[in-house]
Amino acid sequence: MAPRRLKVACSGLGRMGSRHALHFLNRTPRAELVAAWTPDEKELAWAKQNLEPYGTTLYTNYEEMLKHPGLEAVVIATVTTAHAQQAIQAIEAEKHVLCEKPLSTSVEISQTVVDAAAKKPHLKVMCGFSRRFDDSYRDAFERMDSGAIGRPTIVRSQTCDMYNPTPFFVEYSQFSGGIFVDCNVHDIDLALWFFGQDSQVKSVAAFGVTAIEPDLKKYGDVDNGVGVVEFYGGKIAYFYSSRMNAPGQHDETEIIGTKGKLAINTRPQNNLLEVHEANGIRREIPLTYYGRFENAFVKEANEFTAACLDNNKLPFKLSGAVQAVVIGCALQESLRSGRKIFFDETGKQVEQAKL
Amino acid sequence: MAPRRLKVACSGLGRMGSRHALHFLNRTPRAELVAAWTPDEKELAWAKQNLEPYGTTLYTNYEEMLKHPGLEAVVIATVTTAHAQQAIQAIEAEKHVLCEKPLSTSVEISQTVVDAAAKKPHLKVMCGFSRRFDDSYRDAFERMDSGAIGRPTIVRSQTCDMYNPTPFFVEYSQFSGGIFVDCNVHDIDLALWFFGQDSQVKSVAAFGVTAIEPDLKKYGDVDNGVGVVEFYGGKIAYFYSSRMNAPGQHDETEIIGTKGKLAINTRPQNNLLEVHEANGIRREIPLTYYGRFENAFVKEANEFTAACLDNNKLPFKLSGAVQAVVIGCALQESLRSGRKIFFDETGKQVEQAKL
Amino acid sequence: MAPRRLKVACSGLGRMGSRHALHFLNRTPRAELVAAWTPDEKELAWAKQNLEPYGTTLYTNYEEMLKHPGLEAVVIATVTTAHAQQAIQAIEAEKHVLCEKPLSTSVEISQTVVDAAAKKPHLKVMCGFSRRFDDSYRDAFERMDSGAIGRPTIVRSQTCDMYNPTPFFVEYSQFSGGIFVDCNVHDIDLALWFFGQDSQVKSVAAFGVTAIEPDLKKYGDVDNGVGVVEFYGGKIAYFYSSRMNAPGQHDETEIIGTKGKLAINTRPQNNLLEVHEANGIRREIPLTYYGRFENAFVKEANEFTAACLDNNKLPFKLSGAVQAVVIGCALQESLRSGRKIFFDETGKQVEQAKL
Amino acid sequence: MAPRRLKVACSGLGRMGSRHALHFLNRTPRAELVAAWTPDEKELAWAKQNLEPYGTTLYTNYEEMLKHPGLEAVVIATVTTAHAQQAIQAIEAEKHVLCEKPLSTSVEISQTVVDAAAKKPHLKVMCGFSRRFDDSYRDAFERMDSGAIGRPTIVRSQTCDMYNPTPFFVEYSQFSGGIFVDCNVHDIDLALWFFGQDSQVKSVAAFGVTAIEPDLKKYGDVDNGVGVVEFYGGKIAYFYSSRMNAPGQHDETEIIGTKGKLAINTRPQNNLLEVHEANGIRREIPLTYYGRFENAFVKEANEFTAACLDNNKLPFKLSGAVQAVVIGCALQESLRSGRKIFFDETGKQVEQAKL
Repeated sequence: MAPRRLKVACSGLGRMGSRHALHFLNRTPRAELVAAWTPDEKELAWAKQNLEPYGTTLYTNYEEMLKHPGLEAVVIATVTTAHAQQAIQAIEAEKHVLCEKPLSTSVEISQTVVDAAAKKPHLKVMCGFSRRFDDSYRDAFERMDSGAIGRPTIVRSQTCDMYNPTPFFVEYSQFSGGIFVDCNVHDIDLALWFFGQDSQVKSVAAFGVTAIEPDLKKYGDVDNGVGVVEFYGGKIAYFYSSRMNAPGQHDETEIIGTKGKLAINTRPQNNLLEVHEANGIRREIPLTYYGRFENAFVKEANEFTAACLDNNKLPFKLSGAVQAVVIGCALQESLRSGRKIFFDETGKQVEQAKL
Repeated sequence: MAPRRLKVACSGLGRMGSRHALHFLNRTPRAELVAAWTPDEKELAWAKQNLEPYGTTLYTNYEEMLKHPGLEAVVIATVTTAHAQQAIQAIEAEKHVLCEKPLSTSVEISQTVVDAAAKKPHLKVMCGFSRRFDDSYRDAFERMDSGAIGRPTIVRSQTCDMYNPTPFFVEYSQFSGGIFVDCNVHDIDLALWFFGQDSQVKSVAAFGVTAIEPDLKKYGDVDNGVGVVEFYGGKIAYFYSSRMNAPGQHDETEIIGTKGKLAINTRPQNNLLEVHEANGIRREIPLTYYGRFENAFVKEANEFTAACLDNNKLPFKLSGAVQAVVIGCALQESLRSGRKIFFDETGKQVEQAKL
Repeated sequence: MAPRRLKVACSGLGRMGSRHALHFLNRTPRAELVAAWTPDEKELAWAKQNLEPYGTTLYTNYEEMLKHPGLEAVVIATVTTAHAQQAIQAIEAEKHVLCEKPLSTSVEISQTVVDAAAKKPHLKVMCGFSRRFDDSYRDAFERMDSGAIGRPTIVRSQTCDMYNPTPFFVEYSQFSGGIFVDCNVHDIDLALWFFGQDSQVKSVAAFGVTAIEPDLKKYGDVDNGVGVVEFYGGKIAYFYSSRMNAPGQHDETEIIGTKGKLAINTRPQNNLLEVHEANGIRREIPLTYYGRFENAFVKEANEFTAACLDNNKLPFKLSGAVQAVVIGCALQESLRSGRKIFFDETGKQVEQAKL
Repeated sequence: MAPRRLKVACSGLGRMGSRHALHFLNRTPRAELVAAWTPDEKELAWAKQNLEPYGTTLYTNYEEMLKHPGLEAVVIATVTTAHAQQAIQAIEAEKHVLCEKPLSTSVEISQTVVDAAAKKPHLKVMCGFSRRFDDSYRDAFERMDSGAIGRPTIVRSQTCDMYNPTPFFVEYSQFSGGIFVDCNVHDIDLALWFFGQDSQVKSVAAFGVTAIEPDLKKYGDVDNGVGVVEFYGGKIAYFYSSRMNAPGQHDETEIIGTKGKLAINTRPQNNLLEVHEANGIRREIPLTYYGRFENAFVKEANEFTAACLDNNKLPFKLSGAVQAVVIGCALQESLRSGRKIFFDETGKQVEQAKL
């Protein structure tokens, strides 16, 4: 008898949703994509051609989809503002959940997802921090964990997107939570991974400019941001994000310890080709986030599936996703106010630096 | 109704066979692995656990497997000496064939496969030159094809394996056809790809040493080989192969044209991590051929499947596989005799250099 | 008649002083090292062997040296605390001055040198920011200047030294001005170079930890520092410095513009050799600052000499050296107080962020 | 009293001669350039401006220059055809000699220099194989010498020049000895250095094409050459040279041993800058041989000077320069005849491969 496969549904079939759907359909052997939902007609048309013929039932109502017979898990890839509510509905309907990052751009709302999940400890609820599944980051973490660089002390991490010259770019910013929540949330999550999930933030300061899109100002956002996060216990993470990286997507991270450094993607490349031509030697880099992390998304789908089927521990705790939003929002607040923001050891904002 | 999937069988479940089987089982959405055959008990035990539960019927007789109901295609990954006969049997049984390289270490036997395929032009018969499916090589080919480097003139290509300190290494050499046929056949195929499938070899000269395994001499083989192949029309390919590359697998290729150069993997790496430590900065490289080319093998399975289902042209002609063996064997003969070998424009060996 | 050579004296013959002396003696064709001074017996002994035989008169009194017949210029490479006074004395004695960085760790004292120089506009007085003479930085500047990256917006720059496990390291810190003044002053100077010498600082925030030398705390210093400097006009520079970089010296800089990025030394190396060995591929990096910037120091000596002899404009203004100390000291103050520090458009510290 | 400096004269003030002259004038502290000779008016005009004012006496007759009072050493940088005779004249006049490579394009004539030098063992006579003085090659040699890569077995080395679209290129070829003697003589010398100066060549085979300059054929030359040299004792060197390398000068070398590999300049670069721009990440490389090896030439001048003054052993034997020409000429002969060429253990050409 064939081993059973996890019955998964996909919520949202936009840019990322359609990718998640295809990963579960084609590249996650232990899962089957039994259902998908989208409110969007164009997305639905795409799904009729690319999902339905392979056995995926399409829904135009999220609640209906949750009732799909035998459904066990939901991957949520809708707009960020819908993440939390859908996640909670799915949890209440006894489904495992893989939710795209962030749970919400609001700390409080993010926490409601954690609270809902806490009531159903038998369910697997994971926030999709894709970099956690990337081979290079995994390799780095294992080396750090085995002591290769001594005690980790500094994390530098950046998320740099290629410029998107469409109006989307500015409009998107009003819902994205701002550059530190939208882009650097990945870097913040990496800092929490490498420094330990329970690291306590001590202070943050953020800076930013609108170099190419002055209109971002109306939403209090920037297109280039620099943020520093100090943790209790002598650890510092500092971040950079940009919406104008000329050659494409360039996300790099360094974990600096007392005895060495792990550098991930400080020499970005699209593949193993270099072109020697009249004006020098050139290589290209991935144009998009997905171009860089496609394999990590696929691994995420497979590990999530295995955790659900085998009742394995997930590779990281859901509560970290709230902590990442806490820090991202504090950076965003620091950016807006121009002030440095301080926290006491319990995570409460305070007025003064503790020296 | 679900689009139909290609019914594939796998012949041989050893090192490469088991990988091909899993690729068709799990990573080729448009195919299903309906059958597999192996004469080996250990491999069979593995298959009972890893293939049978997912719907693959196991056979202990190749001919029986060919009769599997509805079977459409066979991937052949047995020992090299069985490739040709199994391929011909499959062709005669009206199956599409994906055969691991080389068809045979003998030119004449390789040709018999081409002859058999020629009688069944409706079948897709492909020799598995995996590098043809690698993203970096594809990228290079497209650039060359679009004129980026002018007229391609020189190809340099190497296949370097990590040292395998088991007796396997020497014993394997008596069936492998020798280092130029076993390792450099990939590089030769690349030269034929980049110079054009119909390039006519003009002369070859090969050199070699046994640096770490003197016992290879008894089979006329070496552990480090250098070969040069001159083509009519002013083109030269030169090759290096080694069985003792310290850090792992390092296959690199340069295509040099009149206006530029395409360099593939001249900076090998396992992933995007570099370790900064007390004695410098270090990166690792893949340890095995499969570690380097896993994604290419998966793409090969998918493109072969699509060609069978949609009756598309295969990405390259089967006859090239014979031409690669012709050149590999000529290099091997040059190595053994110490002589340079000459060909006229019709491909016949001649005594004298044509100046 | 031989073209005349600039008569130069060297003050201080310690680690850097002896190098400057040799550069002017041997590697600056248009200069001659006519005199040198050191109060240190060991250094004097070295000079008797390495300078005196080649025509350099040795002094044990700085004022005496200034009276050396025909002396035209002085290079000052004593301890930082003596820089300013010696520079002023030399200026008053009508000598050109090349002073090692920083002029002083105090803004006020640094300014006195600028004031003294302003009274003698016919003299060339330069602060030795060696990176300004490095080929790679020069190349980057010219490209930025010609518009290659659009409008420069973000500078990231780091100065990372190899760990020095001697007591020197901690003791040195009480005179060095702290990590932002001692190490990052180079990076600050680069930001002023690339953003424009007259850039006005708007706010700074600094963070730091003592990861390997807790004793640094007693001097208010750290061994790893992160600082951010915001400039009026939408420009941000952020810096990292470390005293514990495992493989050696690693100073890297990125200038990020609206259309591209210039990355200097993001792939550090000692030379063009890579070692392929059992555990990967490895390269080494320079162990010291001088190992990285030797050629820049030599070019500095030659350009300073040419400016003196030909009455050319110096490549950068002395006042920038004060501005770099202003920013370095503000970062150091932010580090100590834990507060973010704000400036108005005239450079005066203010209480509030200007939004 | 100032230590004495070696009195050096420079013969030839063309492209390389003028550089040698300036190196000895300005960048070789223990030498002084007392004399220079050139038959060329334009070069003489240059020398009147750039050498004479600094104390160099100019001559229009080589023999006269040899009689310059106190002259101790001559650097010969005239056209190749004059090297040998001038070297012998200098030796007979009791001068040390640094002669640009090759001594001659003829084996017999090269040997006459060695014979002349053998009669004056107190003189230092060196052929200027500049790569022997390059930091990266030195570093590689020391590592090999200390056993880092086991037993060296294979050398791969290339000399690739940027295309020179002037008639010079073709005309030069009739005196240069051909591409293997002119370009690869450096690579051959490196093979002899890394394999041992007394390595005995066993066979050679050469191949070539005229990809961009068909006119080279009239001098029996090519613009792209591939050559293999087999040595007795199980060692192989293989070479590539090109006159059409698009981005500039790219000379790279690998020394492959039984336990590792030393790779020199497999990632060429002009400096430490990379440009991130819309179509990827780009670096430039040196445009000329001198751009790549300037520092090596300066070190050559200094080490030659030290050997003369201190009566030190030269870093390598003059006889190797003949051996390099022997191999270069054999490759050139193989290229012209299309035949593989064999040698017995005494270095005599024989008809048959020795197996």
